[in-house]
Amino acid sequence: MARPSQPKLSTDAIAKAALKLVDAHGDFTLPQLAKALSVSASSLYNHVQGRDEIIELMRGQAMSAIKLPDLENSSWQDTVQGIAIEYWASYSKHPRLIPLMTSYTVRNSTTLRVYDALAEALAAAGFEPKQRLQAITIIDSFVLGSALDAAAPSEVWVADTEVSTAFRQALDSGQDVQDRSVETFRLGLDIILDGLQSSLA
Amino acid sequence: MARPSQPKLSTDAIAKAALKLVDAHGDFTLPQLAKALSVSASSLYNHVQGRDEIIELMRGQAMSAIKLPDLENSSWQDTVQGIAIEYWASYSKHPRLIPLMTSYTVRNSTTLRVYDALAEALAAAGFEPKQRLQAITIIDSFVLGSALDAAAPSEVWVADTEVSTAFRQALDSGQDVQDRSVETFRLGLDIILDGLQSSLA
Repeated sequence: MARPSQPKLSTDAIAKAALKLVDAHGDFTLPQLAKALSVSASSLYNHVQGRDEIIELMRGQAMSAIKLPDLENSSWQDTVQGIAIEYWASYSKHPRLIPLMTSYTVRNSTTLRVYDALAEALAAAGFEPKQRLQAITIIDSFVLGSALDAAAPSEVWVADTEVSTAFRQALDSGQDVQDRSVETFRLGLDIILDGLQSSLA
Repeated sequence: MARPSQPKLSTDAIAKAALKLVDAHGDFTLPQLAKALSVSASSLYNHVQGRDEIIELMRGQAMSAIKLPDLENSSWQDTVQGIAIEYWASYSKHPRLIPLMTSYTVRNSTTLRVYDALAEALAAAGFEPKQRLQAITIIDSFVLGSALDAAAPSEVWVADTEVSTAFRQALDSGQDVQDRSVETFRLGLDIILDGLQSSLA
């Protein structure tokens, strides 16, 4: 008789299950992951070498949604903006993956291709190597922080009775407005791109 | 005979123990916290109402290090910069607290006082209520993303053999340089403050 069939284990299935655990609990362990997949820990090791590789797989899955723009026919700002917006959309769905991911060295090739595109667009625009690294880091930090803001509750701050008038007016003006987070992200991104452009001159 | 003495439980001790768990595991549960403090879960409930309140206590502890500048005698840029730098320093020590904290409404009064100071400085400079909220959110997002970058490994990206020349040059120019993260954070913050100033004109 044939053995009972079992869903086939793959790096893709492992990354998806790990991401589910991270979304729910902020982290994962290999025993939890094996349990979620109904396999033994040793089966996991047939597919991945360990925790580091699983984190890279999750990173790759989150980054795989990013379509790279046509570098030839776009301004550097359009290229960077296009990537940043998709990067933001992807990570705002998985806020708790963010600090896990930033604490590990990026080795995933899907992810490195995104940074390649950013670096190439910046180099073509005239940014020197060190400026390129700084520009990439500034955009990266702003995207990830804004993705956390997008995942925040609609009431980010509760205005208690002692809050200043200046802050209360600001909260009343739009904290609970639809698209607050995406609009603010786009405004900040424009400010950063304009500032980087000026730093070239 | 006297009962064996026990360390006195306080909201401060609870916040410190919870932060230790978050630093290590990315999250905490009330049973884990009770165990770490060698008390029963019911003893915890004599001091805090639950998980939400503990997160607010951790937020308050992280924000309590921020000294508020003298609003009367500083430009709005100096006020915002001073707060942002201390905020960054505090959160770069606790990167895994960041996504927990951004997923809960801010109710902690120590934290609200920091946002009050930001809002007052921006209002005095002429930012309208909605612009104030946007400016605060942009700065907040950039500080938190940069704090995650500060907690990243010194090798943020590994340049495999297939990486583009543009990106490899950028990495070689300074990824492993001391103060890379703080320098980049300061540069980005200057860009954002300048851009916000221009948006006023």
